[in-house]
Amino acid sequence: MEEIQLFCPATIANVSCGFDVLGLALASVGDTMIIRKKKKPGITITKITGQDLPLATENNVAGVAGLAFLEASDYHGGFEIEIHKKIKPGSGIGSSAASAAGAVVGMNILLDNPFNFTQLTTFAMQGEKLASNVAHADNVAPAIFGGFTLVRSYSPLDIIPIPTPTELYATVVHPQIEVKTSDSRKILKNTFTLSQGIKQWGNMGGLVAGLYTSDYNLIGRSLEDHIIEPIRSILIPEFKKVTDSVKETGALGAGISGSGPSIFALSKGKEMAKQVAETIKTIYSKTGIDFDIHVSKIASSGVHKIS
Amino acid sequence: MEEIQLFCPATIANVSCGFDVLGLALASVGDTMIIRKKKKPGITITKITGQDLPLATENNVAGVAGLAFLEASDYHGGFEIEIHKKIKPGSGIGSSAASAAGAVVGMNILLDNPFNFTQLTTFAMQGEKLASNVAHADNVAPAIFGGFTLVRSYSPLDIIPIPTPTELYATVVHPQIEVKTSDSRKILKNTFTLSQGIKQWGNMGGLVAGLYTSDYNLIGRSLEDHIIEPIRSILIPEFKKVTDSVKETGALGAGISGSGPSIFALSKGKEMAKQVAETIKTIYSKTGIDFDIHVSKIASSGVHKIS
Repeated sequence: MEEIQLFCPATIANVSCGFDVLGLALASVGDTMIIRKKKKPGITITKITGQDLPLATENNVAGVAGLAFLEASDYHGGFEIEIHKKIKPGSGIGSSAASAAGAVVGMNILLDNPFNFTQLTTFAMQGEKLASNVAHADNVAPAIFGGFTLVRSYSPLDIIPIPTPTELYATVVHPQIEVKTSDSRKILKNTFTLSQGIKQWGNMGGLVAGLYTSDYNLIGRSLEDHIIEPIRSILIPEFKKVTDSVKETGALGAGISGSGPSIFALSKGKEMAKQVAETIKTIYSKTGIDFDIHVSKIASSGVHKIS
Repeated sequence: MEEIQLFCPATIANVSCGFDVLGLALASVGDTMIIRKKKKPGITITKITGQDLPLATENNVAGVAGLAFLEASDYHGGFEIEIHKKIKPGSGIGSSAASAAGAVVGMNILLDNPFNFTQLTTFAMQGEKLASNVAHADNVAPAIFGGFTLVRSYSPLDIIPIPTPTELYATVVHPQIEVKTSDSRKILKNTFTLSQGIKQWGNMGGLVAGLYTSDYNLIGRSLEDHIIEPIRSILIPEFKKVTDSVKETGALGAGISGSGPSIFALSKGKEMAKQVAETIKTIYSKTGIDFDIHVSKIASSGVHKIS
């Protein structure tokens, strides 16, 4: 195979109590990319549609991730990359991660899979570092592994795929204001109380247990964040109104997607996820802020080939 | 049935990253209790062997737990309680919890189970409050439910039983120095850093995932506590030497049992758990401190009837 076309999923990182460790991939929201094997060494970004992003390899997250891949590989050729963005940068649903993950998964397939998913994640993290100054993995890991993924540890990198209940859907609203990951990190407090911590890891245990047992109510009860959400939510218009209202509508729970400004809600079943979208539309229509809403199943696979 | 004889398991609370939320029950270490239904209202502690503990109902953890049960019940009679202690108070393996759990589970069986396990836990927590000034549930919950139990939340009380891999064994060493739970709480710091927290809930997710999938290596990698252990371990003789050495021997991981001074190690298989016990004996023999060592399978059930 000399060329591959890929679907590169949007992802939700910092899933409530799983700040910095738990993310998930969306099945029907994402970019497409085309990767081509070339004799000429190095990475060339040949085309980007949908967004105005840098074509220079070293300034592009897919380019940087690809270079990290090439450096670890014994392949002497290179690749061309086309990126067709549908995920907006700064939206909080892993725009840069989709591009970084797409590049390295595509190259890996074209070279008959020399690297495993955890290795690919380390390459893609270099792209994330370019985008946000931090080589975090909680978007790129689900973009590569699919489903829910836990980054148990960074040193060494230890990624645990967590099963996803079959009827779990996400509703994500993206208010069209830009919150940069780096800015959103700056406002975080550096210390927390022990009693906040106990609630957080109690909920983390509950959320993982709920995912393993498809216990939707337990998933909902565990979608709490007593540490980061109270601080970051002040940057997001109507956050409390949206999260309270979607729970009244019937969502299992809701929280900040990544570092915001998007808000996600999880629901059992597509119909409920759509009703939740209507609830959010009603609230946001009154704000005068432009917004996008996505309804998607949680993806069972990460970046994958499309015909 | 007018009388029941019970096995009341010892328990390990504060399992590493699961401080205040995760505990487990031991299959072959515990007290026995006899509970008798009586027409006379109230609770009478008729006999205690093995330890010098108060017989006055309101000063005894089993008595106080029993009174909480009676207050919630519409039963107009009372109970007699005999306690045969094998677990030493102050040992860090749930001595008070075994008595409190035994009392309420026994009474519940004798009255044909009017209460569920979570309700019984709330009664037993009153006994814990007498023992340590805090109505914590992380020993009484596993003593009642068996296996690993997660206390996801206290308000409302939300207890999640977590499955236990079949070959999981605990080795517990109890150095004969007394560390009271209330004293051990006092030295804890009240705040922690965000980076400590991220490791803690990452490990919590990993530990629960490892228990669901019987992934012994993942369980071992997740048995880390970056928040409480570094502080509390200073009260425990040879803590670092013991925990390092048991891992070299082949234990999956190790930590402080409850608020100490006992140290627990988890191993795959009984033989490894016994080897781990030998390693600990070698270290503690040189200290001049008296100590007990227990090797036990993790219990699949909590307090239960014995013939």
